[in-house]
Amino acid sequence: MRHFGFQVTARDGAARRGRLQTAHGPVDTPAFMPVGTAATVKGIQPSQVAQTGAQMVLSNTYHLMLRPTAETIDKLGGLHRFMRWPGPILTDSGGFQVMSLAQLRKLDEGGVTFKSHVDGSEHRLTPERAVQIQDLLDATVTMVLDECTPWPATEAEAAQSMELSMRWAARCREAFRVRPGYGLFGIVQGSVYPELRARSAAALVEIGFDGYAVGGLAVGEPREAMLRILDETVPRLPADKPRYLMGVGKPGDIVEAVRRGIDMFDCVLPTRCGRTGLAFVRRGKVVIKNARHREDPRPLDEGCPCPVCAGGFARGYLHHLFRSDEMLGPILLTLHNLAHYQRLTAELRQAIEAGRLEEYVACFHAEQAKGDLPPL
Amino acid sequence: MRHFGFQVTARDGAARRGRLQTAHGPVDTPAFMPVGTAATVKGIQPSQVAQTGAQMVLSNTYHLMLRPTAETIDKLGGLHRFMRWPGPILTDSGGFQVMSLAQLRKLDEGGVTFKSHVDGSEHRLTPERAVQIQDLLDATVTMVLDECTPWPATEAEAAQSMELSMRWAARCREAFRVRPGYGLFGIVQGSVYPELRARSAAALVEIGFDGYAVGGLAVGEPREAMLRILDETVPRLPADKPRYLMGVGKPGDIVEAVRRGIDMFDCVLPTRCGRTGLAFVRRGKVVIKNARHREDPRPLDEGCPCPVCAGGFARGYLHHLFRSDEMLGPILLTLHNLAHYQRLTAELRQAIEAGRLEEYVACFHAEQAKGDLPPL
Repeated sequence: MRHFGFQVTARDGAARRGRLQTAHGPVDTPAFMPVGTAATVKGIQPSQVAQTGAQMVLSNTYHLMLRPTAETIDKLGGLHRFMRWPGPILTDSGGFQVMSLAQLRKLDEGGVTFKSHVDGSEHRLTPERAVQIQDLLDATVTMVLDECTPWPATEAEAAQSMELSMRWAARCREAFRVRPGYGLFGIVQGSVYPELRARSAAALVEIGFDGYAVGGLAVGEPREAMLRILDETVPRLPADKPRYLMGVGKPGDIVEAVRRGIDMFDCVLPTRCGRTGLAFVRRGKVVIKNARHREDPRPLDEGCPCPVCAGGFARGYLHHLFRSDEMLGPILLTLHNLAHYQRLTAELRQAIEAGRLEEYVACFHAEQAKGDLPPL
Repeated sequence: MRHFGFQVTARDGAARRGRLQTAHGPVDTPAFMPVGTAATVKGIQPSQVAQTGAQMVLSNTYHLMLRPTAETIDKLGGLHRFMRWPGPILTDSGGFQVMSLAQLRKLDEGGVTFKSHVDGSEHRLTPERAVQIQDLLDATVTMVLDECTPWPATEAEAAQSMELSMRWAARCREAFRVRPGYGLFGIVQGSVYPELRARSAAALVEIGFDGYAVGGLAVGEPREAMLRILDETVPRLPADKPRYLMGVGKPGDIVEAVRRGIDMFDCVLPTRCGRTGLAFVRRGKVVIKNARHREDPRPLDEGCPCPVCAGGFARGYLHHLFRSDEMLGPILLTLHNLAHYQRLTAELRQAIEAGRLEEYVACFHAEQAKGDLPPL
């Protein structure tokens, strides 16, 4: 049986190159996890997700508990077998989506009661139930149930919310069934208040987790606030455990967070933007529906080794697919974006190993600033 | 340069096992061509289409002339390069879709004038322009412009329509630029009237084509009428040229048409049904949204070697994808259906080679009649 573990194999400043060892295989960090909300990375087959270089995906407890239900997934052999993703899977706790998607939610000390956005049925999520659902799903990494503090919040509101999350974190730790190769991550809250973040980190370390997430960021606060919180929070997390920045982010945000010692990321941007026709490229972004791409024979990103760019699909063709509302357009842009994100984290890992991260970061920002290639 | 040719390598009754040789590679017949209307087999990458076993695809002139235009595709290197399908491509003439999709169409001796269903712009399609567009597209097989006679039609209406199509066929032959490995197919019309079909076939043979299509079927007439027309028409087509039954059909129709000497097929059924949740299986059909599939761990079709069935995707998972409106559902069912159709034609080829077609056909119908497996 493989153990859940984390080894840091190289450092460059605060940044780390490492490797998670899980029951479902290894994950090289810094790592980006594609989002497979309803047990599918939208439009992409699992074998294709793996081909982009992704080793671990994220799935959403909230969606799965409502449909098809954790019990159905358990009957069908767990999430890995269900969605045909044999690699590691991290599931969130459902707390974030309860706050953003569910109706008529009522929070109390014990948990949160809400109505499903799918069919209006009433459900209750407690720390214990959130852990149990993720157990039924067979999640490789289980996240504690927390309240993602809305932004903006006063310091008093943020403190109250964070303290509830810390009590819930302790209950999740109690409820979690320890198994080799499976892990439970705590989540630091505290909004934009350094002192609250410090108290939250200390509380989690006291409880003891297999990894530590920074939550409640990228929820509307200025980018500078996010980076400042990372500057202040990351050093308070155990050096020998993985650190996960939830829901982040744009390529530039990932680069800056890696510089600050973050190891794991997830974000809907590569998939969601891919579906709406926005491609991430070395020099920024390509809005493929723009008329300038109509007769452009070039790939989205020169030199990109992804199946779309290396496969010879021209911008002109991708433009046509989006203009014609053809499914293949979203599929191909999603594939490219996922590969782009994986290439970014692979380059970050190499740069850290080579001790050249600052140089890489400078080049990265300079390329991004140039903007997309002019039309032919 | 590869020549356009056709060799019959085995016969069993009226059925033939053969091979097309084209500028873009060979096609083993009987062959099923997946439909890639707007230069894409909806939701499926060209490499995946090839993996199902398909060697040739069909694309629609009507759609492509309107968007992105034949001239744009020509500028981008032709249809093969544009859609990344290096194999043979057959394009229809646009006539059928002008009649079924376009607005305000006006037919005269010279051609047909119509307004685009996309943006209302006015266009004119003549036999010469239809051939020129398919030349710009770089179609491996060009189809003559014809009028697909609507059903029902009186014998007088059908005769008038057929005769116009024959005059257009002669003009297409004139306009077609002969190149090694490229072919032009004529289309037999004449509705359900044997005498008209015979006259149409004779007129086409007199003009001389690289292949002969039977058109105007599967447009609403009873199945028996279609099979009777095939019985009467196919023997009138040259034995040394490929025969193509346009727009057909259901698996059982393909089997019966192969028995009658047809070599090539195209149909939207595997792709369109795949998108709406209907899977073709050995024992008939599976409507995946039905509640009976909710917790079924079995594949769509036991023993099917397609990437969906052999890949271990359970009916319960596919059911979940369709219930959740996830893109991957239509993608996977389309893939399965395309593979199912390719398996069917591969089995037909083997049965003809082995001289056991009648035995195969009897087994095929018996299996279909059993219906889908009962729930576990």
